[in-house]
Amino acid sequence: MSEKVLRVGLLGFGTVGSSFAEVLAASQAKDIQLTRIFNRGVQRKKTHDKAQFVPANVAWTERVEDVLEAGDVDVVVELMGGLDPVEGWLRAALNSGKSVVTANKQLIAYRGAALFALAAEKGVHLLYGAAVAGGVPVIPGVAQGLSGDQIKRVSGIVNGTCNFILSSMEAGADYGEVLKTAQGLGYAEANPSADVDGFDARAKLCILSRLALRAEIDPDTVPAQTISTVSAIDFAYAKELGCTIRQVSRAQKDGDKVTARVGPMLVPMTSPIAWSHGTQNMVVTSGRFGGDVVFSGHGAGGHPTAVAVMSDVLAVAHDSSPVRLPARKVAVSGDVMAPYYIRLVVMDKPGIIAAIAGALAKFGVNIDSILQKRGYGTERLPFVVTTEPCLTSTMEQAVAEMASLDSMVEPPMWMQILVVDDPATD
Amino acid sequence: MSEKVLRVGLLGFGTVGSSFAEVLAASQAKDIQLTRIFNRGVQRKKTHDKAQFVPANVAWTERVEDVLEAGDVDVVVELMGGLDPVEGWLRAALNSGKSVVTANKQLIAYRGAALFALAAEKGVHLLYGAAVAGGVPVIPGVAQGLSGDQIKRVSGIVNGTCNFILSSMEAGADYGEVLKTAQGLGYAEANPSADVDGFDARAKLCILSRLALRAEIDPDTVPAQTISTVSAIDFAYAKELGCTIRQVSRAQKDGDKVTARVGPMLVPMTSPIAWSHGTQNMVVTSGRFGGDVVFSGHGAGGHPTAVAVMSDVLAVAHDSSPVRLPARKVAVSGDVMAPYYIRLVVMDKPGIIAAIAGALAKFGVNIDSILQKRGYGTERLPFVVTTEPCLTSTMEQAVAEMASLDSMVEPPMWMQILVVDDPATD
Repeated sequence: MSEKVLRVGLLGFGTVGSSFAEVLAASQAKDIQLTRIFNRGVQRKKTHDKAQFVPANVAWTERVEDVLEAGDVDVVVELMGGLDPVEGWLRAALNSGKSVVTANKQLIAYRGAALFALAAEKGVHLLYGAAVAGGVPVIPGVAQGLSGDQIKRVSGIVNGTCNFILSSMEAGADYGEVLKTAQGLGYAEANPSADVDGFDARAKLCILSRLALRAEIDPDTVPAQTISTVSAIDFAYAKELGCTIRQVSRAQKDGDKVTARVGPMLVPMTSPIAWSHGTQNMVVTSGRFGGDVVFSGHGAGGHPTAVAVMSDVLAVAHDSSPVRLPARKVAVSGDVMAPYYIRLVVMDKPGIIAAIAGALAKFGVNIDSILQKRGYGTERLPFVVTTEPCLTSTMEQAVAEMASLDSMVEPPMWMQILVVDDPATD
Repeated sequence: MSEKVLRVGLLGFGTVGSSFAEVLAASQAKDIQLTRIFNRGVQRKKTHDKAQFVPANVAWTERVEDVLEAGDVDVVVELMGGLDPVEGWLRAALNSGKSVVTANKQLIAYRGAALFALAAEKGVHLLYGAAVAGGVPVIPGVAQGLSGDQIKRVSGIVNGTCNFILSSMEAGADYGEVLKTAQGLGYAEANPSADVDGFDARAKLCILSRLALRAEIDPDTVPAQTISTVSAIDFAYAKELGCTIRQVSRAQKDGDKVTARVGPMLVPMTSPIAWSHGTQNMVVTSGRFGGDVVFSGHGAGGHPTAVAVMSDVLAVAHDSSPVRLPARKVAVSGDVMAPYYIRLVVMDKPGIIAAIAGALAKFGVNIDSILQKRGYGTERLPFVVTTEPCLTSTMEQAVAEMASLDSMVEPPMWMQILVVDDPATD
């Protein structure tokens, strides 16, 4: 097998694609050969400083068919992203007996089940280690190393942009400013919605759910809450509660369904999830027999993501198929039994606390603490209520009731509070 | 493939073996069947409370040949440990075309290269995910997920007993007492040498070196330093230096050789290595392209280790072979360029600091700081010198010179100081 050469056709010579060319060149692997590259604007791409890592005999093309239909391509490496037209291209590649390695989280989250079935039918590989947490080997680690456990819950920080924003805010930065910095550094898009509103993280959570919980869930049914309403004052209150704030993605087996959410959450400083700073990613799996396992590292960036892609290409070259256990299609509930943090900004007048306590009492939500920091005027007085564990839906009803109070200056903002050593149940 | 049943012959029904039977039963895997169990004292083992997880039709035996030569065993799962006689047994199994799954770190560290070659020759599997860090999937994670990187260094906490002892000492416990507690809890052996003197960790480090650094090193050539000389006063000084103390195993590519050591080291509180408490294990790999990746979780215990074993058995059942890249046999150096911590206990008299500074100066070792806590008598005065980076061998010469001073009350004790963001070089 070692004499056989695996011929690679690359779709996309952007940040990850060009880094993959560099990592492949540095590996000096004699059994893997880059033969074709598809990208728009080939002449411009050829002057890219990483084009130096592309062997001279590689055929560059602006016609995707030149890769998909090539006789000298055994594996198509797709590093472009998006569902359409990429899904059709990769189906064509699989149908013609080519293996596929992809970093495309949307495609694997939404269409993974059908694509895996097609790859199995055609007897080829479909690997996607770079689709979640980039350079952190959580996909192969769970697939090969935790297949023997029954994983009950998967939690993590899988969007580096949000982690960069929130960990910078923890250190004192302002949301708007740090978002601009992130855009300047290329961490965030001009339209940051996919990151800050949780859609990117949600796709990755669904991929982890399929693999770790063996539960196939529809990404569109997972509630995603934006981090854009988190402000400096929330970090101050979080600190008082022994916590920080992170965008957390979490899915848990709960009888016949999966309870899942993505959004900003209060994370105790003693939790491993609070360890991640900057663009780091972290995934924690909670298994029935193995307990909690933590995977952490660089979740994004050209080089770390290229490592995951290169590892998958090596697996194809060595004909190394992962253990693939069947996943069951299950419904999602976004209703999480947990304590909540509710931040209110009110015009201070007599009876306001009683009115808020009344709104919570009306829906049977017990107050755990009321926190109020000094130094704010009575016109825009921020304070925080933390609740005892209750369902998200119940808490949201109480919040809606509070929002309708006269003295409310801005809409109440709420976040789930993570609990350390909260056992994963089934 | 899914209709085929993989028949398992188990060697050893101790803590891990019985937990494996439990995890296998809980998996309800229809394609994996336990057929034979070898152990001494079968009648007693049959009354073990986990014998309930063993199907009634399993053949128990006290003759190992009944497993090794059985026609109804496809994979031998070895959970006994030690080199002899186990090596001969597993060679016999491989020779007769049976796959092998083992948790035997000594065997894989000392004899792995020859055994992998034999397995490859026979076209069978030899998997050992449970041999390092138990339930933490560092072996499959590195093999499958980081094969595309060039890993320069691997560091970690791979002995749960030492981590339990040192993290308890960090919280105020005395070495002797916590060792007794560890023995009572079954974490430490009656003779704790393999753990506290670093021999267990050293074997695991060599396995990681082969896999991650692709460097085959002889475990006997890796310097191992005992943790038994670490005392409460060292934790007090470490805290003053912003550090804690852990048994760290570390191997780094260094040109044509590997620099490797196992022993107690000062770990900055900001390093992930300081995060591990109790019997937790943690491994950090430092890659040229992917940067640092952290794997953490339960490194020992029946259930977590059984998860790793079960995952390997599933890989055999699914005929999933890991990517296996060639490792080169290289020499080990124990000479590490690093800052050092030296704790001295002296009879205080004029000129002692000058004499110590003189010993360091004689060998060209620069002093970074001299620390002395109050509250000790002049008869047994402990104080600490930290050095600027120098080679271990140089520092040891200076320490030998100090040890010969008249006023030295007990032998000087030294530890390497880990540096955060110390780049892994090649």
